[in-house]
Order: sequence, then C-alpha cells, then structure tokens
Amino acid sequence: MPKIIGMESKKMGLPPGTPIYIGKGAAGKIKIEVIDYSENSFEEKTLEKVEDCLPFKEKKNVTWINVVGIHETQEIEKIANKFGIHPLTIEDIVNTNQRPKMEDFENYVFVVLKMVYYSNENLNFEQISIILGENFVLTFQEKEGDVFGLVRERIRKNKGKIRKMGSDYLAYSLVDAIVDNYFSVLEVLGEKIEQIEDKLIIKPEQKQLVALHQIKRDLLFLRRASWPMREAIGQMHRGGSKLITHTTEVYLRDIYDHTILIIDTIETYRDIISDLFDIYLSSISNKLNEIMKVLTIIATIFIPLTFITGIYGMNFEHMPELKWEYGYYLILLIMAILGISMAITFKKRGWI
Amino acid sequence: MPKIIGMESKKMGLPPGTPIYIGKGAAGKIKIEVIDYSENSFEEKTLEKVEDCLPFKEKKNVTWINVVGIHETQEIEKIANKFGIHPLTIEDIVNTNQRPKMEDFENYVFVVLKMVYYSNENLNFEQISIILGENFVLTFQEKEGDVFGLVRERIRKNKGKIRKMGSDYLAYSLVDAIVDNYFSVLEVLGEKIEQIEDKLIIKPEQKQLVALHQIKRDLLFLRRASWPMREAIGQMHRGGSKLITHTTEVYLRDIYDHTILIIDTIETYRDIISDLFDIYLSSISNKLNEIMKVLTIIATIFIPLTFITGIYGMNFEHMPELKWEYGYYLILLIMAILGISMAITFKKRGWI
Amino acid sequence: MPKIIGMESKKMGLPPGTPIYIGKGAAGKIKIEVIDYSENSFEEKTLEKVEDCLPFKEKKNVTWINVVGIHETQEIEKIANKFGIHPLTIEDIVNTNQRPKMEDFENYVFVVLKMVYYSNENLNFEQISIILGENFVLTFQEKEGDVFGLVRERIRKNKGKIRKMGSDYLAYSLVDAIVDNYFSVLEVLGEKIEQIEDKLIIKPEQKQLVALHQIKRDLLFLRRASWPMREAIGQMHRGGSKLITHTTEVYLRDIYDHTILIIDTIETYRDIISDLFDIYLSSISNKLNEIMKVLTIIATIFIPLTFITGIYGMNFEHMPELKWEYGYYLILLIMAILGISMAITFKKRGWI
Amino acid sequence: MPKIIGMESKKMGLPPGTPIYIGKGAAGKIKIEVIDYSENSFEEKTLEKVEDCLPFKEKKNVTWINVVGIHETQEIEKIANKFGIHPLTIEDIVNTNQRPKMEDFENYVFVVLKMVYYSNENLNFEQISIILGENFVLTFQEKEGDVFGLVRERIRKNKGKIRKMGSDYLAYSLVDAIVDNYFSVLEVLGEKIEQIEDKLIIKPEQKQLVALHQIKRDLLFLRRASWPMREAIGQMHRGGSKLITHTTEVYLRDIYDHTILIIDTIETYRDIISDLFDIYLSSISNKLNEIMKVLTIIATIFIPLTFITGIYGMNFEHMPELKWEYGYYLILLIMAILGISMAITFKKRGWI
Amino acid sequence: MPKIIGMESKKMGLPPGTPIYIGKGAAGKIKIEVIDYSENSFEEKTLEKVEDCLPFKEKKNVTWINVVGIHETQEIEKIANKFGIHPLTIEDIVNTNQRPKMEDFENYVFVVLKMVYYSNENLNFEQISIILGENFVLTFQEKEGDVFGLVRERIRKNKGKIRKMGSDYLAYSLVDAIVDNYFSVLEVLGEKIEQIEDKLIIKPEQKQLVALHQIKRDLLFLRRASWPMREAIGQMHRGGSKLITHTTEVYLRDIYDHTILIIDTIETYRDIISDLFDIYLSSISNKLNEIMKVLTIIATIFIPLTFITGIYGMNFEHMPELKWEYGYYLILLIMAILGISMAITFKKRGWI
Repeated sequence: MPKIIGMESKKMGLPPGTPIYIGKGAAGKIKIEVIDYSENSFEEKTLEKVEDCLPFKEKKNVTWINVVGIHETQEIEKIANKFGIHPLTIEDIVNTNQRPKMEDFENYVFVVLKMVYYSNENLNFEQISIILGENFVLTFQEKEGDVFGLVRERIRKNKGKIRKMGSDYLAYSLVDAIVDNYFSVLEVLGEKIEQIEDKLIIKPEQKQLVALHQIKRDLLFLRRASWPMREAIGQMHRGGSKLITHTTEVYLRDIYDHTILIIDTIETYRDIISDLFDIYLSSISNKLNEIMKVLTIIATIFIPLTFITGIYGMNFEHMPELKWEYGYYLILLIMAILGISMAITFKKRGWI
Repeated sequence: MPKIIGMESKKMGLPPGTPIYIGKGAAGKIKIEVIDYSENSFEEKTLEKVEDCLPFKEKKNVTWINVVGIHETQEIEKIANKFGIHPLTIEDIVNTNQRPKMEDFENYVFVVLKMVYYSNENLNFEQISIILGENFVLTFQEKEGDVFGLVRERIRKNKGKIRKMGSDYLAYSLVDAIVDNYFSVLEVLGEKIEQIEDKLIIKPEQKQLVALHQIKRDLLFLRRASWPMREAIGQMHRGGSKLITHTTEVYLRDIYDHTILIIDTIETYRDIISDLFDIYLSSISNKLNEIMKVLTIIATIFIPLTFITGIYGMNFEHMPELKWEYGYYLILLIMAILGISMAITFKKRGWI
Repeated sequence: MPKIIGMESKKMGLPPGTPIYIGKGAAGKIKIEVIDYSENSFEEKTLEKVEDCLPFKEKKNVTWINVVGIHETQEIEKIANKFGIHPLTIEDIVNTNQRPKMEDFENYVFVVLKMVYYSNENLNFEQISIILGENFVLTFQEKEGDVFGLVRERIRKNKGKIRKMGSDYLAYSLVDAIVDNYFSVLEVLGEKIEQIEDKLIIKPEQKQLVALHQIKRDLLFLRRASWPMREAIGQMHRGGSKLITHTTEVYLRDIYDHTILIIDTIETYRDIISDLFDIYLSSISNKLNEIMKVLTIIATIFIPLTFITGIYGMNFEHMPELKWEYGYYLILLIMAILGISMAITFKKRGWI
Repeated sequence: MPKIIGMESKKMGLPPGTPIYIGKGAAGKIKIEVIDYSENSFEEKTLEKVEDCLPFKEKKNVTWINVVGIHETQEIEKIANKFGIHPLTIEDIVNTNQRPKMEDFENYVFVVLKMVYYSNENLNFEQISIILGENFVLTFQEKEGDVFGLVRERIRKNKGKIRKMGSDYLAYSLVDAIVDNYFSVLEVLGEKIEQIEDKLIIKPEQKQLVALHQIKRDLLFLRRASWPMREAIGQMHRGGSKLITHTTEVYLRDIYDHTILIIDTIETYRDIISDLFDIYLSSISNKLNEIMKVLTIIATIFIPLTFITGIYGMNFEHMPELKWEYGYYLILLIMAILGISMAITFKKRGWI
Repeated sequence: MPKIIGMESKKMGLPPGTPIYIGKGAAGKIKIEVIDYSENSFEEKTLEKVEDCLPFKEKKNVTWINVVGIHETQEIEKIANKFGIHPLTIEDIVNTNQRPKMEDFENYVFVVLKMVYYSNENLNFEQISIILGENFVLTFQEKEGDVFGLVRERIRKNKGKIRKMGSDYLAYSLVDAIVDNYFSVLEVLGEKIEQIEDKLIIKPEQKQLVALHQIKRDLLFLRRASWPMREAIGQMHRGGSKLITHTTEVYLRDIYDHTILIIDTIETYRDIISDLFDIYLSSISNKLNEIMKVLTIIATIFIPLTFITGIYGMNFEHMPELKWEYGYYLILLIMAILGISMAITFKKRGWI
C-alpha cells in the first residue's frame, strides 16, 4: 500500500511554515537545471550553487528552473526566498503528502500535482510543485526523471509556439505533460483489466482476484490524485490569476477537459472491475455446484447399491435368496436397473 | 472492451494544437459531400478537392459540408482553416477520444457527439463533430455510413420546414438524428434484457450472466456518452450562442428532454440488471440447496442401513441372531421401518 | 417488463413537430367529452365532431374538454390547432413515452403526467396530457377510464368551491386526482410487501423472491414517473405561469408535498425490499448449513462404525477376535460407545 | 410494518380543504387543556366546550391550548376557525400521514412533527401539530400522553425564563421536548445494537438477524421523520417568520444542531448494522466451512479404509493373503499407517 | 461501541441554557492553567480559584486559560460569565456529545472539536471547546492530558512567531495541533490495515474480519468527527469572524486543506476495507470449494470401488467368478483401472 500519510507525525507541533522534508528515501544531492529562453535566445545550464539562479531572475527572458530533490530543505528555502515565495508554500513543496491544489499568491501561482508513472510493475506517484511567476517557472520534483522531456525538446528546437509565449504557457505545457501521462497509465491499467477479464470468464482463479484488487487500489489512488487535480486546473482556466493570459486559459480549458476524461475513465474502470468481481463470485458458486453435482450423482447411485450388496453379504443362516440358482444374476439385474433409472432421473433434472 | 483511451500516448509531448489523428483502423480516402440549399434552390455534390468548398462558403445559402474520414489530418486542417476554425478545435475533431461537448467560439459553435449503432451484434461508437457557422454546417465523421439519411431526404424533397430555416436548424436536425439513434439502441438492449430475464427465472445459466455482463458494459459506455451529451445539448438550448435562434432553441429543448429520457432509461436498465444478477445468485444458491438435499436424504437413509448390514456381515463365531430362523426377515423389517421413518422425518421437514 | 421505449424508432428522421402516435394497442374511435360550467350554469356533452368544440371556447365559462384516444393524430391536431397549441406540444401529446413535465407556453400551460392504476394484478401507466388555457382545460388520455370520476361529480353537484373557481383550479383538481391515485397504488404494494415479509421470515421460497423482484420493478417505474412529476408540480406551484392564480398555488403546494411523500414512500419500500432480499439470502445459507449438519452428523457417526464392521467382515483365516466367545458383544459395545461419544461431541458443538 | 400510508384512499376525490380524519384507532372524546400564563399570572384548565377557548384568545397572556384527539374533525374545525386557521392547515392537522414541515401563514406558523416513543417494545410515531400565533400556541395530538410534562412543570413552577418570554419561546420549548425524545429512542436502539453485536461475533443466529432487521426498519422510519424535521426546524431558525423573535432563533439554532446530530447518529447506526449483517453472513459461511471440514476429514479417512476391508471381505476362493498367518495384522497395520498419514496431511493443510 | 449518545436523557425537559454535565467518568477536581504572554513577557500559572482569572483578562497580553475537567458545571459557569459567554455556549461546553462546530458570537468565536488519540489500543475521542476572544483564548477539555504540549513549548521558548501574534494565532495553533493528531491516528489505522491485508491474502481467518470490523467502526467515528470539523475550520478560514485576522486566515486555509486530506484518507481506507472484505468472502468460498473437491474426489473414486467389493462379498451360492482361479486378481485389476481412470478425469477437469 502506498503510504498515504507518511511521516506527518515528524512535524507535529512545529511552528507552521517550518519546512520539514516529508517523503521517503531521499538521497543524493539537490540538482538545479535552468532553461532560459526568449523567441530568439536559448540557454540551458545545470547550476552548482543556488546563488547562481539570481541573474536569470533579473532577465526579461522566460526562465525555467527545475529543482530535483527536495530533501535538502535549506537549499529549497534559499531558492524560494530569492523568488519571494511564502513560507507556507515552501512547507508545501517539501511535504510530499500534499493534495493537488492551485493557490494564487498575488505575485505567483502555486500548483501542486502528482506525476504518475509505472516502474517495476508498480504505480508510482511523485509530487511536482510548479510555481509560475511573472517571467519564471520553478518546478520541484522528488527525484531524477520526469515527463517533461518533450517540453524541453520543443523549447530547444523552437517547435510550436512555446518560445513565442510567456511563462504561463510554459507552466501550461508542463501541466499538460503531467496530465497526458495519466492517460498512458490508464491505458496500461485498461489492458490489464482486459487480460484479466478474458481469463476470468473462461477459468476463474483466486490470483486474478488478487490482481483485480491491486488494480482497484491503483485506481483508488489515481482517483485521489485526479479529483483535486481537476479542481486545481479548473481554477486555473477559470481566470484564477492575472498571471495567466486569456490565450493560455483557452489551452487550460482543453486540459481541464482531459482531466474530466481521466476521471470518467477511472470511474468506468471501477464499475467494470466491480462487475468482474461479481462474475468471479458467481463463477465460484457455479463451480461449487458442479462439484457437488458430481458428488451427489456418484453417492446417490452407489450408496443404495452398496446397501443391497451389504444385505446379501450378511451371514444369516436362513436367507433363501442365497440358495436360488439365479439369485446372483437377478440381484445384478436389479442393481443395474436401479442404477440406470437413477441416472435417467439425473439426466431429466439436467444434472448430467 | 471498447478502447476507451486509444493511442493518446502517440500524441504526448507534441505542441498543443497539433492535429494528430487518434482512432483506429482508418483507411480509404477522405470524402467531402456538399449539400447547399435555400428555400428555392438545392445542390448536392461530392467534391474532389478541398479547395472546391470555398465557393459554397461565399454563397448566402445554407451549406452542409460532410467530411467522411478524419485520418488525413492535413486535409481536415485545410478545410478547417478555410472556415476560420481554431487549431484546438481541429485537434479535437481528429481525436476520436473526445468527450461529447459544446464549445462556443464567437464565430462558430463546435459540438462533438458520439453516434451509436449496432453492427455485428456489437455496440459501436463513432465520433461526430458538428461545426455550426453563420450559414454553414461542417460535419466530420470517422467512416462511411451515418444516421443522417432522413435529414438529407428532407432537404432534397423539401419536407417539413428545414429548407425554410437557417443553418442552426440544420445543426439541430443532425443532433436530433444522432439522439434518436440512442433510442433504437436502447430498444435493442431492452429486448435483450427481457429475453435474458425470461430465461433466468426459469433456468439460470452462467452464459446468461455473461450476456448480462456484456449489456451492463454497453450501458456503461452509453452512459459515458449520454451524460456529457445531455450537458452539451443543454448548453445549446439555454442560449449558448448567438448563432442559435430562439425558434431553434425551443426545438433543442425538446431533444434535451430526450437526452434526459435516455439517461433515465439507462439508469433503469442498470437497476434491472443488477436486480437480475441478484436473482441469478440466489437461484444458484437455491440449486445448491436442492442438490445437497438429495445427497443428504440418500446418505442419511442408506448409510445407517448399510451399517446394519455390516454388523451381520461380520464373521464372529458367536452371533446368536444369525442362527435365528427369522433373523433375516426381522432385520429386513427393522431396516424397512428405519428407512421409512427417516423418509417421514424428511417429509415433515419439507425436504422431499 | 413495461416497454419503456416503445416504437420511438417509427418516428426517426421525420421532421420535428410531426405528430406520430407512439403507444401500443390503440383501438376504437376517438371520444370527446365536454363539461362546461360556471358558478350557476352546467352543461355536459359528448361531441360527435371536433368542430363542435369551438363554441365552447368562445364562452366565458370554464370548459373542460376531455379527449379519449390519441391514436388518430389528425383529430388531435385539429382540436389542438383550434386552441392555438404549438406543434411540438401536439407531438408530445400523441407520444406516450413522454417524461412527466410542465411547460409554460405564454398562452397555455402544458402538463404531462402518468396516471397509474392496477388492472389484472399488473401496474399500468397511462399518459395524461393536461393543457390549461385562459378559460379552458384540455385533457388527453390513451383509453377509456380514468381517475377523474369524483372531480366530475363535484362539478355536477357543485360540491366544494370548484364551480366558483377558474380553469386553473380545475387543472389543479385533475392533477390532485392523479397524484392521489399513486397513494392507492402504493398502498397495494405496501400490503404485498407485508405479506411477503411475513412468509419470508418463516419459510423462505424462491417464488417470494420473484414476487419481490416484480414489486421492485413496479417501484422502479413508479419512481421514474414520480420524480419528474414532483418537478413538474413544483414548477407549477412556484409561480410557473401567470395562468395560475396565487390561491391555486397554495393548493398546488399541498400536492407538491404529496409528491414528496410518494417519493419518500417509494424509497422506503425499496430499502425494505433490499433488506428482505438480504434476509432471504441469509435464510438460504442457513438452510444449507442445517442440511449439511444433518449429513455430517450421520456420516461422521456411521462411516467409522461401518469401517469397524468391515474389519470383522474380512475373511482372514487368522483373526483371533472372531473366535472369542464375547467378541461380538464386545464389538457392539465399542461401537455403541464410539457412536454415543460422537453424538455428545456434536451436542457440545451445538450441532444437534 | 407501520402503515406508512393509511387510509388516504378514504379521502380521494373530496374537495381539498375537507378535513377528514386519517389515522387509526381513534377513540374517546376530544380533550382540551389550556395553560395561560404571563410572568406573574398562571392558570390551568381542562375545557368542557370548544367555545370556552375564546376568552383566552383575547387576553394579552400567552395561551397554550393542547387538544388531545383529532378524530372529531368538526371540533377541530371549530377551534381552528376561532383562531383564523386556513382550511388546508386544518386538513393537515387531522391527517396523520403528514410529512413533518413548517409553513408560514402570515398570521400564524404551522409546524407538524412526529413524536416518537417506545411502547410495548415497539417504536411508535404520533403526529403533533403546533400552531404558533401572536400570543397563543395550539397543539394537536392524536392521543393522551405526550413528552411535554417537563415543559408544563417549568411553566407551573416558573423555572427558567419560560414565563418571561413570549409564545414563540413556548413553541420552541415544545419542539425541543419532541426532539429530545428522539435521543432517548436512539439510546435504546444503540443499546439493542450493542447487545446484538456482542452475541453475533460469538455465536451468530438467525434470530439476531431478524432483530437487526427490525432495528433497521425502525431506523428507516426514524430517518423518514428526522430529515424533514431538520428541514422544518432549519426554516424556523433561519428567520422563517416574523412571529419568531431573534432571541428564540438562537435557541432554535441549538435544536437544529440536535436534529443534525440525530440524523448523523441514524446514519452511523445504519452503517454499523449493515456491517454487522456482513459479519453475520461471513460467520455463516465460516460455519459451513467448519462443518464441511469435519465431514471431509471423516469421509476421506474412512472411505478408503472401508474399501480395503471390502476387498478382504470378498469371497473369492483364491485369495492368498487370507491364508497368511499375519495377513490380518499386516492389513490392520497398513490401514493404521494410511489413516495416520491422512490425518497428518490434514494437519498440514490446517484443517484440524 | 463508543457511546454516541450518552446521558442526554438526563437533561430532558430542563430549561435550555442549563449547563448539565453530559459525559462519562468525570472525577477529580477542576484544574485551571493560565499562560499569559506578549512578545517580551511570559507567565505560566496553575490557578487555585476561578476568581484569579480576572486580572489576566484585563491585561493587554494574550492570555490562554486551559480548563481541565468540565464536570463541575458551576465552576465552568463562573469562568464563562467572567468572559461574557452566552449560556447556550456554556451548555455546549459541558455537553460532550457536541457535534464539532464553529459559532460566531460577536464578542467571541466558539469552536468545538474532537481530540482523537489511542489509549490501550482503543480510539478515544475527547471534546475540546475553544473560545477565542479579543485578547484571550479559553480551552476546555474533559481530562488531564492533551495534544498541546508542543504549542506550550513554542510559547515558552518563543519559537516561531507565536509570541509576536495575537490570540487568533494561538487559537489557530491549538486547532492545528488537534488536526495534526488525526494524522497520527490515521497512520496507526493505515498500518493495521496493511498488516491485516498481508495476512488476509495468504490465510483468511475470522479474527481478521473482526479486526477489520473494529477498524471500520473507528473510521466511522473518525468520519463523524472529521466532516463537521472540516466545515467548522472552513467557516473560520472564510472570514467567519472579525476576531480572526487575514494573516491567520491564510494559515487556517492550510489546516482546512489538511482536514480535506484527512477525510480523503478516511474514505480511501473505507474503500480498501470494503475491498478486503470482499476478498475475504471470496477466499472463504474458495476454501469451501477446495474442501469439497477433496471430499468429492475421495468419495467418487472409492464409493464405486467399495460397491464392487460389496458385490463379491455377497454370499450367493452360485457366483461363478468366485471360483475362477484368477478372479481375485482380475477384480483387483479392474478396480485399479477404474480408480486410475477416474483420477485422470479429475486431473483433466483441473480438480487435482
């Protein structure tokens, strides 16, 4: 079970606004990647020191600073302070148990989303914090590796209109990349469901149930991430901030539609799974009936016959049948008739 | 399972507004059908080149351009550009995973709906995009064959008031045709449910369950298509755009009522199916009880009797009963009494 | 299953506003009953020709025209046209698959409701369309026989204040009569549920389940009719039209409360039924347990004993016990002890 | 099952506003109790004639007239007319199938609530109608006995501020007394649930299920009474009428909170019961498994052994084993080994 | 089961605003702890007499008065009166069955919350009433021991900005501490669920079900406490009172987000538990199938074979097979073939 609530208790009683890293398995040094561009210029760097960010802030260009690793809270604080970020926002950035949300602080927009991806057959959630300012975008991610590769490519190669637009369009592109990844995760889940379904109807097994349970849980967590994501993006596209231009709002409406589609799909999958579960249960009952039918047929035919053999296996001295010449054959015949007529009865009841 | 999310991942990371065909099995060349009419004139053509659309746009007449096949995205783009369609709309047209919706762009209204029909016993969904402009209607469909035959007929033969009305009335007629088709699909499903129901109560079988499961799934997808359709049509009839006259809005209210009826029916069907499922389960349990009763009656009567024969089948030297002259008959009598009294007990318990 | 969607497909593709009769089993000629009254005058007639309606329309009196039979659509159209009814309303009148609704057309109010009644142990729904105009009320029903008998009586005998009030009060009285009939239907259903309940707890049987299933379905259709009915009446009492005076609105609020009570009762019944269903299922399980206990007790006691008799039924030459003088009695004793101690064990486990 | 809908049909077709008594088992004469008080004066009387109410109405004091028995509708009408009550209100008073509600008629406020109490182990509902006027409160109850004893006591002994306040505070006190009684009923139900729960986990029995079913039904009817009660009181505290002073509104907010707590508790109980039901079902399944294990163990051990004894019980002339000196002992040994090894297998599978 | 409704009946009929202690097991004397601070000063005291509170009220400093024990209602009344608290608020403070809520009385804000904690493996709820005034905060708790330790620490050591802020920030800090504790309780529950889940899939047992039932119930009560808590905090952060500054509102929005996360988590847990329950049920069914298979295999193989031995155990004088030299071996062979072929059949059906 993904830890829903991590080490929140670590933080109890501390003054609010104290940035405490809440998350698991943080390691390695913090990494700061900067991409700075305008329609005509482009620069890409990996910074050594937090202080090196500052010159980019001054420039008129759009600056995208991507911070990988959020466990060194002092470093995060340093960067944030340089860009005038509120302490509560900093606290939210380093607490990976955030619910996706969008908050408008006059001078910047703060968006937290969950990035989803599969690794080692497990569904993983990673928190991405996006801060959209006048001419900069800050992103904070928990570890190396993200879904922004193609956005970077578009900036580098000046594809589409990204280089012609402002920082709000960059923020939109990043959110779009995150949302798109939900679709590929859902695609994988959809295929898994399809496979299980095919097997389930033919030959129900407990392990399919466990697999369904796993998918159901994944959907549960996806849903937990999607509903507030939808809300956050909805707020953005409904003119949530003056930092977002009307042009970008139209694009945001588009990903808002996507989030609705995501939620729709999750709910549909859940319905299908619960339906499959019912089918599984009824299959088991059916199988039990099959088994019991076999048992009942065998027992019902042979128990009375065995009783008859038992009668003539008794050692009474005076048992006239035993002396009849064709007694044995007669009894065999009677038993055969009895057995066959029982089998016919079962046939009629539709048990055989 | 209908692919809910197709090859969305194909598109990941591309600049927004890049029209990428998302759908399956597109083949054949694009086909452009034009119907141009006013109260007194009528013209119908199949165009060779996209460029041939243009003259129609200029005319005062109502022009309906129906594009069959949306996989050649450049062609779609060409047409759309001629009519001043926003890139995001074009992207939506060629992406067949759209959620039904209605969007008002000042100069045109964009409506996406799902056309449903049965083919080869399977429920199929095809995306229809309708663009309503000042004096034109553009429709885009995935493949040959649609539900608009009777609308065309009415235009050709000047039946009803369609030729007297504007492009908004044409758009309404098309939406109406799509909505009406949901009813015929529901009718088919209703009949299937009725058939299964009749069988289920008489003789429950696993295959009926699988059939119910299939219907349930069809309803799931119908519902996914109907709810947003209702919303989209609701928006249209509530004065969603200045391109829709008040007269047409009254008609749209009528199909809005139909969509509610569709949703109502879907929900009723779902309730009925879930009820049938319960009945199925209880029937299985009942059958198991029947089977077990038979087994228990047989076993309970004959096992003790067999035990008695076992006693007198023992080979002890000193067993006085064996020597009694009527021992055998006595034992037979005892067993008969025992068996009959057990049968009576079962009778009393209502098991026989 | 009542046909939820009848022959809707009959109508596909026709121009909207084309009145097509949709319903089943229409026969016989249309019948037009007119009641015309004021505080001091009263006239009741059955008209031969549609044209004879006209003089009544002119008069200042309140005129109630009740049309029985809606399959002759041309006749309906003729009447409707005389009273200035919109084509879409006419279409709705003759389509018996209408959802209950209230629509305000400036010069008249259109209300569609479902009349419910039992006939031959089956719940039937019949569509009643009520058109309330300045000084007339038109009602359209599918076939002979309705729930308005007592309203007619009140008009004829000048009971209560109906003759002193306008056409809106007449419309209210008709709606009230329809709503009241829901109560008597629910009363019947309530009694059926009670009967089944009493039996179910004592002796659960499959046929009770089928009866419950039937009631559940009836409730499903009642609910489908009641929810929109509540909405329609709610609209009327909330000042839906200038044709309804404030005095009548107070009375409408009263039936609005009744519709809420109807819905409440339906939901309560549904809850009770689903609870009964659970009890049924658990009773079946319990019975299975009872059956299996009997089988297990018998088998567990006698199978080991039979094994013992089997041992001494073997024909080995060297079996010293067989030669003991009291061997037989000893073995009988051992088997008795074994049997009794097993019975005690079962007693302790609470199985006997 | 409490009759949810009583003899409503009695009333069908009568002109609205005709007060018809709807309820069961009314007997005895109507009784009119009057309490009249101001801060300094107090008078308590049981009236003989309806006409004697009048002088109290004139006085400036607060007058509380409590009418016991509502089956003599003419008497009720007489009283009501004296206080200017609308015919529809009178009709509501004598119809005991009213849904709890609050209605504001300019000159008075009409509140209908359900009084709940236990008698003979059954949950009973009695309708209380409260009419709050300028300086009077009328209450109508079905039969002798109510929950207002302590309110009377407070007035008599001038406890609290009730004598210092107006008629609205009296109405509030009465409503408060009714609402408080819901808590004592819930307390009883809570204890019943607890008792059943304790037994259910130890030893599940069908009769507990029936008891749960009874409680569930009681909760169903409590809920039916509580939801609209909450609504009615909510309307009162949100300034529903100018007859209710702001001071009293604060107190009403308090009982409004209580009604929410009541509903909360009902829902919690329902959840607990549905959970207990699941546990019951699973316990039954578990018991079945236990039973079947015993049967299977016994049968699986002894059936093969009995087969072996059967072999050596055959009467073939040439069966060398029978002649071996230690044949018998060998066979006994083999059977012992077989039996023990089977028992070990079961042990390993965790069946013993 | 936690008593949801305690001794509410104790209070029935008393004048409203009479503070009656409702709760269980109150003992010991009341204890009054005072912390008084400004940015530069700090004082902490345990008061002997209620009267000693007064000087603190006069001072400009922020004063936090924490009252432990609410069963001595007169004492509570005395304190409350000194601070101008409304009688209804006092009544709410001493009634521990309060629903969490926030009420704004002009001169103070009244917040009731439930503090949750584990003690002796049981989930406990304790009511905390917080009164926020101009320059004071009063808190009332049922017994010794709370979750405010770290807040006290921060005030004492002047950590964070608490000493620089007003009484509203103190109230916020207390609410924050209470809300944080919900997370630690959920963490414990989450771990319990995880442990049960791991066991359940491997080896389902009834006791796990009972444990799940316990957790489900705990979640039920947590939910009952969380929903209204969320509402209350929501009201506070949405500018519920002029006593709460805008700065503090930002912080309150933060804990509002936490309450949403709490509710989210509770719902997720409930979903997981209901899923586990389903898996449990299906595991039991599966086990039953396994058991029945074993029984059926054994019985189906050996019952027919035993029948054969029965035949040749009969004592007829004329049974030619008995005299055949290799009759015995032939029969053994036949039985072996029969047994093996049956085993193969089972193998094919996948039962072995």
